[in-house]
Amino acid sequence: MTCNVTVQKNTFSESLAIVGRAVGSHSHLPILSNILLSKDDDQLRLSATDLTVGVTVWMDAYLDGDLGLTLPAKTLTDVINSLSDPEVVFSVNGKPEASLKCGTYKGIVKGIDASEFPAIPEYPITNGVSMDASMFKEMIQKVAFAASMDDTRPVLTGVLMSMDGKTVSMVGTDGFRLAISKAILPEPFAKKQLIIPAAALKEVVRILNATKTARITFVLPPNGSQVVFRCENVQMVSQLIEGKFPDYQAILPKGHKTRAVLDAGDLLKACKQASIIAREGSNVVRCHLQPGADQTGKVKLLAESDETGASEIELDATVEGQELEIAFNVKFLQDGLEAITTKNVTIEANAHNTPAVLHSTGDEENLYVLMPMHIDGR
Amino acid sequence: MTCNVTVQKNTFSESLAIVGRAVGSHSHLPILSNILLSKDDDQLRLSATDLTVGVTVWMDAYLDGDLGLTLPAKTLTDVINSLSDPEVVFSVNGKPEASLKCGTYKGIVKGIDASEFPAIPEYPITNGVSMDASMFKEMIQKVAFAASMDDTRPVLTGVLMSMDGKTVSMVGTDGFRLAISKAILPEPFAKKQLIIPAAALKEVVRILNATKTARITFVLPPNGSQVVFRCENVQMVSQLIEGKFPDYQAILPKGHKTRAVLDAGDLLKACKQASIIAREGSNVVRCHLQPGADQTGKVKLLAESDETGASEIELDATVEGQELEIAFNVKFLQDGLEAITTKNVTIEANAHNTPAVLHSTGDEENLYVLMPMHIDGR
Repeated sequence: MTCNVTVQKNTFSESLAIVGRAVGSHSHLPILSNILLSKDDDQLRLSATDLTVGVTVWMDAYLDGDLGLTLPAKTLTDVINSLSDPEVVFSVNGKPEASLKCGTYKGIVKGIDASEFPAIPEYPITNGVSMDASMFKEMIQKVAFAASMDDTRPVLTGVLMSMDGKTVSMVGTDGFRLAISKAILPEPFAKKQLIIPAAALKEVVRILNATKTARITFVLPPNGSQVVFRCENVQMVSQLIEGKFPDYQAILPKGHKTRAVLDAGDLLKACKQASIIAREGSNVVRCHLQPGADQTGKVKLLAESDETGASEIELDATVEGQELEIAFNVKFLQDGLEAITTKNVTIEANAHNTPAVLHSTGDEENLYVLMPMHIDGR
Repeated sequence: MTCNVTVQKNTFSESLAIVGRAVGSHSHLPILSNILLSKDDDQLRLSATDLTVGVTVWMDAYLDGDLGLTLPAKTLTDVINSLSDPEVVFSVNGKPEASLKCGTYKGIVKGIDASEFPAIPEYPITNGVSMDASMFKEMIQKVAFAASMDDTRPVLTGVLMSMDGKTVSMVGTDGFRLAISKAILPEPFAKKQLIIPAAALKEVVRILNATKTARITFVLPPNGSQVVFRCENVQMVSQLIEGKFPDYQAILPKGHKTRAVLDAGDLLKACKQASIIAREGSNVVRCHLQPGADQTGKVKLLAESDETGASEIELDATVEGQELEIAFNVKFLQDGLEAITTKNVTIEANAHNTPAVLHSTGDEENLYVLMPMHIDGR
């Protein structure tokens, strides 16, 4: 198999950056550190996978033969990024290695035979649902951070995506906090519930940011164990997580006894200040909600550490209902505030030992439910 | 001891950034993680030390009493940096802790009694030599990187600073490469040879960058074991390294059989390209110097790795004398090129197994001497 490929250096760099993120790290399977380069119609196709997620990019190139080899992602990417001439020529001649030329640079990058590379399935994208990319990205950003990073309960590392025909919702939870996001489907779609790895969805966000595409197409292949995202010249296939997602409806608080509305940016800044002391303890921050209409109420954040000291930050707020002191993990509170998209945040709570709800003020569809922390002597 | 201190937030932040760098890391002496706050005349004085280097900063502040306590550098710095009002007030009342107030923020930072803090000596700066800060900084930047990072031979972790009355020179070496820099002293100074820790000199560069001061004063206290640098409101005291610096004059090549002159930026870029392959081996890059006048000569950089591949970059150069192939550690070659301050670099060599010299073209005072590497079969 002999092939000479001519490709734009910048296009090659950008495509490698996209597939490169799917390359397995610390893998005991060397082939997963490689990128598969192949010919598809008249395009150059790059593919990478960590066995959970597979990413494929198609790019314009001139190919004079058939192509199929894998090259180490890191070496190839570093070499291509280091080049300065606009055009790269690389040749493959039987062996699993490529000879590259670009301006004053000549090089050989050694790889592994393409036959060892795990197959990344391709599916027709005709029967999918096409969604607004920025809407989809925003949904992911509102829930994926709340999924668990801990593999001991695999379902919690995923995001539950539910479609009831007209609306789509996403839920992420690690057992300590839960984030929900909802949107209306642009076109009717079958009723479905899937658990998609949160890491795969975060990857979708990165791909959307890199390709700056306006639409994303979502396909469920008939095998029932995968999901496919396609935008422009990039496709991502992810395994689904099997298992039963926790019944989160049960923990959603009904009503509230205290509601505070205050500037989300100020509260986020106060959380960062409080965490300087709180991080020395168990990240506990006490949140004191003092009623008062029209910004005459107060939200106080208190942190204490026997060794380091203490801090108290007082913020003006509109607080209705009962006075309440409730403690949170300051990092989780911060995460929730970072997902707020309005100037003000609304905090609703019932008691110091039941979950509280945060949401962008005026938006009751996207919720962040936060379990309180125990304070000694309560 | 009671004291209320009022200080500008920005001045406090900047001063903490300067002293904070001297704070010991991973120390088994907790007091070294702290900063000493004290009153000196009508100024607030901050001091930190890792026992090798001590840094003191004086800043304008209003103090209504005597002050002396130490506070943890990281907590104090993070708290001060997190504040947004222009003025910080802190109070100390007998205990080794400070109560801070700034806008809506109130906090306590706990510390350790000042009596546990190691004394940082202060010396009069009247009998020192005052030098141009940018000249001194440039000298350090040309040699300090070549000093050893390895503590097994302490003298090599230092920079030899020699004054012969009229000129000052600095030498750094780790046994594999050696950098020399020379300058004329602005005023006569005693003949002296000192070995200053390279880390302390790098710290001087950071202080000069932070204070943007035009002059630096250099003092040798009578005890003979320390050196003091003073610029504006910052003082650094460093221990000197005892021992005998290697006789580097002996290894300086006399004359050369091959001389190449080429664009330093292009060669640096080529080194970075070559290192992608070379890093997989022992960082060896072969440098092929092919004679040719007026940029018709060539400098080729060749790297090879059995596993990863190979690369060859060819650069136009003016090469006089004999053709030569000489191998270097590509990282060391890169370090030397990064210190070149002219457009072109001159490389002078005699043989594949003797040291080569790099210098900014036209500048014979500041030299970088590089030991060659062995290539198999030579």
